[in-house]
Amino acid sequence: MGKVFLIGAGPGDPGLLTVKALRILEIADVVIHDRLVSAEILRLSPQALLVDGGKQQGDQERIQDDINQKMLHYASKDLSVVRLKGGDPMVFARGAEEWEYLIRHGIDVEVVPGVSAALAVPALAGIPPTCRGVAASFAVIAGHRQHLIETDWSQYARVDTLIVLMGVENREHIAENLIRTGRPAAQPVAFIEHVVEQGSTPRQHVIETSLAAVAAGQIDVEPPAVIVMGEVVRLRSRWARVRELTDQARCA
Amino acid sequence: MGKVFLIGAGPGDPGLLTVKALRILEIADVVIHDRLVSAEILRLSPQALLVDGGKQQGDQERIQDDINQKMLHYASKDLSVVRLKGGDPMVFARGAEEWEYLIRHGIDVEVVPGVSAALAVPALAGIPPTCRGVAASFAVIAGHRQHLIETDWSQYARVDTLIVLMGVENREHIAENLIRTGRPAAQPVAFIEHVVEQGSTPRQHVIETSLAAVAAGQIDVEPPAVIVMGEVVRLRSRWARVRELTDQARCA
Repeated sequence: MGKVFLIGAGPGDPGLLTVKALRILEIADVVIHDRLVSAEILRLSPQALLVDGGKQQGDQERIQDDINQKMLHYASKDLSVVRLKGGDPMVFARGAEEWEYLIRHGIDVEVVPGVSAALAVPALAGIPPTCRGVAASFAVIAGHRQHLIETDWSQYARVDTLIVLMGVENREHIAENLIRTGRPAAQPVAFIEHVVEQGSTPRQHVIETSLAAVAAGQIDVEPPAVIVMGEVVRLRSRWARVRELTDQARCA
Repeated sequence: MGKVFLIGAGPGDPGLLTVKALRILEIADVVIHDRLVSAEILRLSPQALLVDGGKQQGDQERIQDDINQKMLHYASKDLSVVRLKGGDPMVFARGAEEWEYLIRHGIDVEVVPGVSAALAVPALAGIPPTCRGVAASFAVIAGHRQHLIETDWSQYARVDTLIVLMGVENREHIAENLIRTGRPAAQPVAFIEHVVEQGSTPRQHVIETSLAAVAAGQIDVEPPAVIVMGEVVRLRSRWARVRELTDQARCA
């Protein structure tokens, strides 16, 4: 029997792959990748059969079954199979389900954690998820439809920094519910548009606003984006102002 | 002026460094590292001056001032300085404070996100932080004394998976408060002792218990350990049983 490596590709820059992930990608027989993995990263496996497991359209359950069967198919042929996901493989994206599926079918699995986009995308935009005196905790949720139906919103009312992945399309619904259950309407919010394009390092664009403005439908933003809510958002502009003042002082 | 790279070293295995972190470590002039960074990783910078910024003993503020001054001192000499932290540099550990300090002193800073121990240590122990139908969100908190004094415990009552870093010493206090504010006393808890020793890959040891047993002072565990609370903890034993059954079926 072969083996499946459940690998996190990080937020998009090939430099943010782990050393172990890179070594495995360079010798894998098959790479089954998600839509959000950059072409730059896929080029690291020129020897491998690349299988697009993208889940953009169609029946999610059928597509997931198809991915599961492909992992099983290639691993059963004694091949070395990489299941490559954006960010960390165990943060949403059905990584745990795929792990369980493979165990149930007697396939050897090795998990290679990755740099989570939930933490790295904000940090690269100048927003640390935690900062002493500002935020002593953070929570991460998935903002796509199926997660939201049964959500107990009050659990997110008071956590210092709230990070939402895959939440752009439901941003108004999310913001309304957070305000209703106790998050301050004036709280700063950042949308970090994180564009992973073929052949280039990811580009980021930041929109700073408030929870109230998001709830009122005033924010124009395209997925994919990481949403950060909390006082840490203010650090970005504060530090930018400090940088300007320091630069001026140096020229004088 | 030199530059400071705020780098996350990941959970201890050099294979879980990012490619970018490795490249920078190989050419850095100075590496100011935390106590929890493994000797195996420090050996990747034989050319660099290694400075131990460990914060184990003594006045934390004084030690932090000393680290800040060292970063500034070496960067001012036009050197390439790495500030190397375990896990991700922006998850607790004063990474954001050091960032702000350097900006205020006009030093160029580049943040290189790392694999967070909060997510990777559980995953490597067989506990995914999220799993559809089991946990749709997670929160991460720091469990050392200064964080706990003003903590509003109710914010952690209902989040699906709660991960506590640096919480071993205050485990009874943490568990008592979580039960008092609404987390089920019977909820499963895992302590993942994560030992980073000189010259070897990190070793992990898992203790599974309940929140009630932790609150009652029944759990013997040594720091450092990552604490995971929530239904995802059950997946570890469940999958182990499935693996056993699958292996038996194969031999038959």
